[in-house]
Amino acid sequence: MMNLTQMLNSAAGGTPGAVATQYGDRVRTWAETRERVSRLAAGLKGLGVGPGDRVAILALNSDRYTEYYFAVWWAGAVVVPMNVRWSAAENAYSLRDAEAKVLFVDATFAPMVPAIQAEAEALETLIYLDDVEAQGPPAGMLEFESLIEQSSPVEDACVGGEDLAGLYYTGGTTGFPKGVMLPHRALWYNGIVLAKHVGLEQGDVYLHAAPMFHLADGAASGGASMVGAKHAYIQAFDVDRALDCIEEQEVTHALMVPTMIGMVLQHPNFSAERLSSLRTMLYGASPMPQGVLREALEKLPNVDFIQAYGQTELAPLVTVLPASYHQLEGSRSGKLRSAGRVVVGCEVRILDEDGKEQAPGDVGEIVARSPGTMLGYWNLPEQTESTLVDGWVHTGDGAYRDEDGFVFIVDRLKDMIVTGGENVFSAEVESAISTHPAVAEVAVVGVPSEKWGEAVHAIVVAREGKSVTEGEIVDFCKPLIANYKCPRSVTLRDEPLPLSGAGKVLKKDLRAPFWEGSERNVN
Amino acid sequence: MMNLTQMLNSAAGGTPGAVATQYGDRVRTWAETRERVSRLAAGLKGLGVGPGDRVAILALNSDRYTEYYFAVWWAGAVVVPMNVRWSAAENAYSLRDAEAKVLFVDATFAPMVPAIQAEAEALETLIYLDDVEAQGPPAGMLEFESLIEQSSPVEDACVGGEDLAGLYYTGGTTGFPKGVMLPHRALWYNGIVLAKHVGLEQGDVYLHAAPMFHLADGAASGGASMVGAKHAYIQAFDVDRALDCIEEQEVTHALMVPTMIGMVLQHPNFSAERLSSLRTMLYGASPMPQGVLREALEKLPNVDFIQAYGQTELAPLVTVLPASYHQLEGSRSGKLRSAGRVVVGCEVRILDEDGKEQAPGDVGEIVARSPGTMLGYWNLPEQTESTLVDGWVHTGDGAYRDEDGFVFIVDRLKDMIVTGGENVFSAEVESAISTHPAVAEVAVVGVPSEKWGEAVHAIVVAREGKSVTEGEIVDFCKPLIANYKCPRSVTLRDEPLPLSGAGKVLKKDLRAPFWEGSERNVN
Repeated sequence: MMNLTQMLNSAAGGTPGAVATQYGDRVRTWAETRERVSRLAAGLKGLGVGPGDRVAILALNSDRYTEYYFAVWWAGAVVVPMNVRWSAAENAYSLRDAEAKVLFVDATFAPMVPAIQAEAEALETLIYLDDVEAQGPPAGMLEFESLIEQSSPVEDACVGGEDLAGLYYTGGTTGFPKGVMLPHRALWYNGIVLAKHVGLEQGDVYLHAAPMFHLADGAASGGASMVGAKHAYIQAFDVDRALDCIEEQEVTHALMVPTMIGMVLQHPNFSAERLSSLRTMLYGASPMPQGVLREALEKLPNVDFIQAYGQTELAPLVTVLPASYHQLEGSRSGKLRSAGRVVVGCEVRILDEDGKEQAPGDVGEIVARSPGTMLGYWNLPEQTESTLVDGWVHTGDGAYRDEDGFVFIVDRLKDMIVTGGENVFSAEVESAISTHPAVAEVAVVGVPSEKWGEAVHAIVVAREGKSVTEGEIVDFCKPLIANYKCPRSVTLRDEPLPLSGAGKVLKKDLRAPFWEGSERNVN
Repeated sequence: MMNLTQMLNSAAGGTPGAVATQYGDRVRTWAETRERVSRLAAGLKGLGVGPGDRVAILALNSDRYTEYYFAVWWAGAVVVPMNVRWSAAENAYSLRDAEAKVLFVDATFAPMVPAIQAEAEALETLIYLDDVEAQGPPAGMLEFESLIEQSSPVEDACVGGEDLAGLYYTGGTTGFPKGVMLPHRALWYNGIVLAKHVGLEQGDVYLHAAPMFHLADGAASGGASMVGAKHAYIQAFDVDRALDCIEEQEVTHALMVPTMIGMVLQHPNFSAERLSSLRTMLYGASPMPQGVLREALEKLPNVDFIQAYGQTELAPLVTVLPASYHQLEGSRSGKLRSAGRVVVGCEVRILDEDGKEQAPGDVGEIVARSPGTMLGYWNLPEQTESTLVDGWVHTGDGAYRDEDGFVFIVDRLKDMIVTGGENVFSAEVESAISTHPAVAEVAVVGVPSEKWGEAVHAIVVAREGKSVTEGEIVDFCKPLIANYKCPRSVTLRDEPLPLSGAGKVLKKDLRAPFWEGSERNVN
């Protein structure tokens, strides 16, 4: 009953003529989408794809990505959405690990195929996602549209509940990628939770601005489908494309990472009028620097900003900070730096190192359980056992809860800096530095120090046309945070900070040069 | 993971100091409530209640009713909430059928106990819900508060998912009651769906105005608990009590059946200012007569009216008509007579007698499936098989869907009147008559007619201080509905229409005198 094709059937049954997807000028209704999905699923079955088989995709955003998801589930198979920011080697690893039989690939990633294919022995079929000219798809590939045209609709396999729905590879930035096994129940739950907390309704328009392989977009996409809202797409994030699409398609809901929101607000073509249809901006994946948040609330006073915190292992939602707590002044402003409260259906505990629940205000590891909880890591029983303990996911994030139940994420536990016996949370220092008017981006890491063990170090990217010095940054911090938290040194960087596929700053890469030859695990 | 104690743990973990329940002057926080529930569950275990055992309750609304629900689930057992409008014989039947070991009973229903107890052989323990004076509880009963005081907290049994959570007896008005088996998954799903569609948030106050044994209140109660909202109670529905409670406790959300809403609006102590805290009024169980709806929208313009349609077999939600479609004028007003669109996570089909899906506009039986679907009827495999077909619940309700996906319930299929070869839906005729200014209540049934087979007959209750004649009713209908739908005869009735425990008009009882000696099944 918790099967992911149900939302497609509900929308196609209830609002057959409503627009389901629009990609550029290509517009399809829910009835058309269901028809196409049932044909594409038939095509997959004809290729030997059966229940439980893995079917991967490596592509930028499009309406066909949505059809891929539903068709794989309609056939009873398992999606493997691949990270568009990963190297061929990383993608080959995950494809081989998943033993995927079929790979959907678009024009952007077709050139990567030979390097991947050589490593992925189980791979039998390649399906080319983009429109083709007269010469047909690249050699050795089937064509997406032909597969739909040439297949007759097949019955929904109706797998659901605890059946495996997807392998979501994560952690590629910190070692070998792990395949997070998510059942239908987990993805279904996240769709309904997102629809509830973000207030999605039939008639709304959701913009796929973040990459569709990622579960943040996946949950929002599920929420949109569940209520029969319309899906709008930009192929990949770009400020002009996002502004154009929001304006032309009257987008009501979007999800972006803080970096994207900052880029939108600071872009010369930005104007609030162009975003007048936008009611809700969901953000997450990393905390919003205070400076960007202030700018966002001032420049877009009619948009509800909602923060979500989660993890792939929970498919992903854990907490949400509603729009009503996005206030810069007044009694509620103290909650603005929190990740909000636990979402409906989820439980959270903050545990110390011995597994004892912490009192309000005390930092520990945040652990959570909900119907979004993963089944485990694919073929990794030991990692599963250490992460999934008695049904609780151990997130590896440090956090505390206040008396009102708001969760404050202080840091990834491994990004915490221990300096002179004090714990410093890099996120807190970053938040302080981000309010400096000349700072565009900032990351804080621990670097080796003979005196302190580790010392707080900031890496700063200045805003275009502005400059700032090491001394100014340090002086700016002093009235804002305790002395031991202030950076001991600052690197000024010309290029943007390195980001993972999920939009998180790759602190591992930033830390590495400082720790060369030392024994600290920089991951 | 979908266990019903999760919402209690989430609320007690996240907002321990927030008020969970207020009954008169008795106020308890979520932390207190969890502590009491874990003790009460321990008391039940001490009485030999184990996972899967049935524990019944026969009581008016109170905070202790909420504690009962959670404690039974905490102990891994099964709730059996009994209908407060049933006779001792009906209640004895359901108690015996459920083989309940324990019965919670309050002062109002304690006098019914001897008659019930004699019939219910499995019953071992009676627990008295109300406060007791020095002389203690009635003979042979344990006391609710003592059981809590004398027990030490026990660990949550953590049953959930497909485990049986409750037996909800239904259909007692039309034959022997059937025990609808609902798993944790079904009740959990309805809580989250209700919280989504009604927009419940932490900080809201939900009033238990409808009886707590019924699933309509059950779903709303689940939604309120899921977000950590406050529960307010009136023991039983009464306009003054409802108005006082809403005013004193600043109630934001209430659920009433249309009859109750009509009584509130027409009461001399009614004023919109007294209801100024009220944001949302959910209604259902029977269609809202147009006259009452018009009055409600005019007198309470700041309240969001939301209609829900459902059935116990779906725990219960199927469709919702949002507040945005409660408009008397304009393009959306045509939807006002519908039951709305399918709720998130649910699928609906309208089938003809051969099981073929009907085109928009054509009436058939509404069938539905969702994670709210029952496991079946307790000990009734044949009835289960005829109602639950391939996972779809056959509701017995006649309905059609319009082009926009809105579901219009035309009638219970068995209340449909076949007159001169035409189908007449009693609900449509009732809706027309209800707009007459002198009409307080109306029910339309089919009565025997030599000429037409059945004839349309209306039973009308006039508003206090007003009168109306048979001829006036018939003349009033003529410009509103087709001639063959107009009543051929009218009974003017002095007392209110007979209602079932769920607040539905008992048409069986109204039809019976007309069909005495005939072969029609008046049920």
